[in-house]
Amino acid sequence: MKIDSVEFFYLAMPVVTTAGDGSQDALLVRVSAGGHVGWGECEAAPLPSIAAFVCPMSHGACRPVSASVLGEKIDGPEDIQRIAATLALHSMDLLQWPHTWSGIEVALWDLLGKVHGAPAWKLLGYTKSYGKTPYASVLFGDTAEVTLRRAKEIRTSGFRAAKFGWGPFGANLTADIAQIEAAREGLGPEGILLIDAGQIFGEDVEAASRRLHAMKAAKVTWFEEPFGGSAYEAYGQLAARARSSGVKLAGGEAAHNRHMAEHLIQFGGVGYVQIDCGRIGGLGPAKQVADFAVAKGVTYVNHTFTSNLALSASLQPYAGIKESWICEYPTQLSRLAVELTSNHLAPDSNGEIAAPDAPGLGIAIDPAALNSYAVDVEIKVKGKTIFAPPAIPRALPQ
Amino acid sequence: MKIDSVEFFYLAMPVVTTAGDGSQDALLVRVSAGGHVGWGECEAAPLPSIAAFVCPMSHGACRPVSASVLGEKIDGPEDIQRIAATLALHSMDLLQWPHTWSGIEVALWDLLGKVHGAPAWKLLGYTKSYGKTPYASVLFGDTAEVTLRRAKEIRTSGFRAAKFGWGPFGANLTADIAQIEAAREGLGPEGILLIDAGQIFGEDVEAASRRLHAMKAAKVTWFEEPFGGSAYEAYGQLAARARSSGVKLAGGEAAHNRHMAEHLIQFGGVGYVQIDCGRIGGLGPAKQVADFAVAKGVTYVNHTFTSNLALSASLQPYAGIKESWICEYPTQLSRLAVELTSNHLAPDSNGEIAAPDAPGLGIAIDPAALNSYAVDVEIKVKGKTIFAPPAIPRALPQ
Repeated sequence: MKIDSVEFFYLAMPVVTTAGDGSQDALLVRVSAGGHVGWGECEAAPLPSIAAFVCPMSHGACRPVSASVLGEKIDGPEDIQRIAATLALHSMDLLQWPHTWSGIEVALWDLLGKVHGAPAWKLLGYTKSYGKTPYASVLFGDTAEVTLRRAKEIRTSGFRAAKFGWGPFGANLTADIAQIEAAREGLGPEGILLIDAGQIFGEDVEAASRRLHAMKAAKVTWFEEPFGGSAYEAYGQLAARARSSGVKLAGGEAAHNRHMAEHLIQFGGVGYVQIDCGRIGGLGPAKQVADFAVAKGVTYVNHTFTSNLALSASLQPYAGIKESWICEYPTQLSRLAVELTSNHLAPDSNGEIAAPDAPGLGIAIDPAALNSYAVDVEIKVKGKTIFAPPAIPRALPQ
Repeated sequence: MKIDSVEFFYLAMPVVTTAGDGSQDALLVRVSAGGHVGWGECEAAPLPSIAAFVCPMSHGACRPVSASVLGEKIDGPEDIQRIAATLALHSMDLLQWPHTWSGIEVALWDLLGKVHGAPAWKLLGYTKSYGKTPYASVLFGDTAEVTLRRAKEIRTSGFRAAKFGWGPFGANLTADIAQIEAAREGLGPEGILLIDAGQIFGEDVEAASRRLHAMKAAKVTWFEEPFGGSAYEAYGQLAARARSSGVKLAGGEAAHNRHMAEHLIQFGGVGYVQIDCGRIGGLGPAKQVADFAVAKGVTYVNHTFTSNLALSASLQPYAGIKESWICEYPTQLSRLAVELTSNHLAPDSNGEIAAPDAPGLGIAIDPAALNSYAVDVEIKVKGKTIFAPPAIPRALPQ
């Protein structure tokens, strides 16, 4: 088969706010090859990602993503790897390329899975998809009281683990301690509590360290993204200070290649590495990171804050690793992200989430959502339209 | 002053080829504040970089670059730093942002320099601009014979140093050895010879190592970019093997933040760190890398393959560091890159190149070139034009 087309669907909520909620828009990718179709999602700014696909070439090492993808042979996983290697050379100077490619790469696994009647995790080499303990992923409330209420709701709804992040966290030590205590109180003594600082401390190891005492007292399992994604030294210093507290660092969502994630393990000393398949270049590099993590005794975790298509994709690279037991499971998705897929991943009787045992990603797209949330974009270069939204058929070939 | 406007000029040669020649197009930035104007250049894919400036917000950590720049206070270098810090948080998930910001950041230093009547290197804290030995930066010929001829021409034209890169290098060991020998022969025994592999070896330390023997025999000063920009382990391993040969590794041009460059020094063991101000986020982070390099005994070198505006920008961050004695000086620029500026940096009586002792970057833009090479681009979202090429006045305020 050859890759016949790559289509981008830019979707957004009618109003997009500055909240740290990544499900307010979406960049969906549909790839067609040999009459088959695969779907993927970029976790990325839609317009620059589309531009990276269609832009004119700048020179031999700054070609558009399309140049390395369209018309390429796609018969098996080795073809995906080959295209990614070509892109790394031919789009080297195009910074946005890994975000654009991520959605395409995921769609190619979905497509191959459908062709072979196998889940993507089988194509990745696993024989079993283990259930993972989902953690509810929510934003901190504006006050500790709101956080307490959210934590209680999460506990009531049956989650054993919850992550609180972003919002006001990081601005004020006293308020942060109150937030951490409220989250623990709401979850109860047995709940698994995770904290996400959203890079708020930049590289300030001292500021981040001042939260460790309260985290230890509240038995926080991980302290996520205290610093910028590349501040390995700051991570390494904080990891050393956190060792006696029992709190481990987590990070990796910003990784846009496997090196970045591996360096965060190697130089940053994280105990949990969180990979977003919509950014790192898709399932292939994510699986490489999972293998690396296992070898280093680090727990792999998915990062996902968008649709269930992205959630399924994010589970595939570590589906078969029993020791990596936890998964992010967003519970405050926008309408758009909910309606985007016709089926959804729900906890099984053990309260666990597993990558579906179905061809590809096992998730169907609802064409109605593609219509409802479509953002009309047109890009013209030298008077010629190089991008316009794809037509949405009433019933989509999945 | 407040930043009143940021305008992007997308320029390109009539025909852009797959040659490794980054001067085939350009993304020029003009910033206006308080009636003053500054110019900068992104070393980046123009369309995705423009899109990163104008795109709709995705969420609080994925805002367009414009949101953190337009209307901001700009009275001194501390304002540039503040805007950069805001961007790192507010555009965290927008991968392209550092490339877009780089051109704006450079333009802000140019603008501040003009306001204060001081060269950018003085605003960066230096008291003197030292001359640097320029190396002619050329592509390998398709054959060793062509390379030999190019090397002889370079020697004849008075250069003491030359870098050969890209082209067929890396594909065949025997041919590569012939290329290296031809370059040495053409330059003569005293010429400083540098080799640039253009990341061709991926992470293959063995393949890169096989070139070391010939490089040692030809007294190669540095072996540049054998691997992908983030392959620190591969760099580190090759650096260890190269130690006895006298050949040092060079790299860093892909760095889109100071961390990446510093990691290449710290974990990759490079002896020369090469920074492109049009990618790393401008002069500010480049100066930080220069300070870091000095502290580690590493030589800082500019990376530039585009216009003399970018060349001047690239010299500023290490203008005052005497020990960092060498500079890249492209000699095969496209017409576009030559015509873009009304003045050009030429070797002084010692054959050295120095950052100009003139306000800002000390380079004037030629409006005729902005007209001749303009690429017509229009981006529409929801029926509204969010980007169109800026009008080019006959006589530009510089």
